[in-house]
Amino acid sequence: MSRNDVPLIENNLDFLPFVPDAVILADGEYPVHEYPLRLLRETPYIVCCDGAANTFISHGYIPNMIIGDGDSLSVENRMLYKDRLLYVADQETNDLTKAIRFLLGKNFRNVVILGATGKREDHTLGNISLLMEHFPCFLHLAMVTDYGVFIPVCDSHTFDSRPGQQVSVFNFGACDMRSEGLVYPVRDFSRLWEGTLNETSGSAFSIFCKGNYLLYLAYDVK
Amino acid sequence: MSRNDVPLIENNLDFLPFVPDAVILADGEYPVHEYPLRLLRETPYIVCCDGAANTFISHGYIPNMIIGDGDSLSVENRMLYKDRLLYVADQETNDLTKAIRFLLGKNFRNVVILGATGKREDHTLGNISLLMEHFPCFLHLAMVTDYGVFIPVCDSHTFDSRPGQQVSVFNFGACDMRSEGLVYPVRDFSRLWEGTLNETSGSAFSIFCKGNYLLYLAYDVK
Repeated sequence: MSRNDVPLIENNLDFLPFVPDAVILADGEYPVHEYPLRLLRETPYIVCCDGAANTFISHGYIPNMIIGDGDSLSVENRMLYKDRLLYVADQETNDLTKAIRFLLGKNFRNVVILGATGKREDHTLGNISLLMEHFPCFLHLAMVTDYGVFIPVCDSHTFDSRPGQQVSVFNFGACDMRSEGLVYPVRDFSRLWEGTLNETSGSAFSIFCKGNYLLYLAYDVK
Repeated sequence: MSRNDVPLIENNLDFLPFVPDAVILADGEYPVHEYPLRLLRETPYIVCCDGAANTFISHGYIPNMIIGDGDSLSVENRMLYKDRLLYVADQETNDLTKAIRFLLGKNFRNVVILGATGKREDHTLGNISLLMEHFPCFLHLAMVTDYGVFIPVCDSHTFDSRPGQQVSVFNFGACDMRSEGLVYPVRDFSRLWEGTLNETSGSAFSIFCKGNYLLYLAYDVK
């Protein structure tokens, strides 16, 4: 199945345990799945990372803010949207970090990152790592893709799910890890692949642990 | 730029420091970039992970071996290619691991993994983690995508490059890390994002360290 064949999901079905007050659109692949597209339509505040603004604008939208180091925005958009441009020259941070810091400064506390996967895979790895780094500063920070949602979590938590939903649990330093409501029990994984390809057995599941982990909830149900 | 707009590269330009004797085609996105497509055409032995065989066959090829747990191959292909099917019922390992173990058993020692990224991002993370787990058993094991190549490395090494080639260095437990020939110096990074977005300053660069790291060489040159 190609990215463009991803089936549409019911519009009233939410995959995140919160309603975002802002979206960061990064410059990976522009979403095609209905859920991230809906987040782009319905979230009140959209920050685009530099080059991502070109794509967002070409889809008929106007970003609330465009943030980056200025090397990817088209000359035309640079002129048209100069009232909502924030160029940060700092070469030590990438555009996603700049967007995250901007939203923190504006007191947004429930943020979703879109367009952070696809294209170069080293950017995908870096973006996931930034998600884990910055989520403690927010009430909720998550990443939504065309295939599922990444939710960083600290300590024990119970999650709503659909029975048979495909789930992966990536350990980022958590200990004493165990699970309820997953087909394969979770433990203190030391390697990323060990927590992949799990699935829920009911309408909720729990992870018990101390520390940080990253949950991936695929839209797929088996 | 969408995945399908990736520019073709010169046919005589190699991005890997070895010539593979076998390719594993995993069931992520089927490659569109000329370099992985050339590896599929020219490598003498192709192992397809289960569902990936459907796509490979639909492109006019015949895999040398199809390996998996049998849940994704079409009924028609299951009949047609039953002489080259290896079903491994083990639920503890995924299809990529089964293919890696099979090639090790057959004494292939220079192997490239294709189709291991795209689609579900939890699979991408798991596949990269499996690359780091298994590369010490091979002379060379690498992952080639539509955007670049992942090369796992142990200890110090010098690599050929093109000036301005985009490079990321992911630390998987290496220590005393430093670099020559990269624009931004490398150190003992503890977070994945810290090693991203580097680039080469000349026609070769070196990483000095003790331990394992993962190199990403993008096709991009800036």
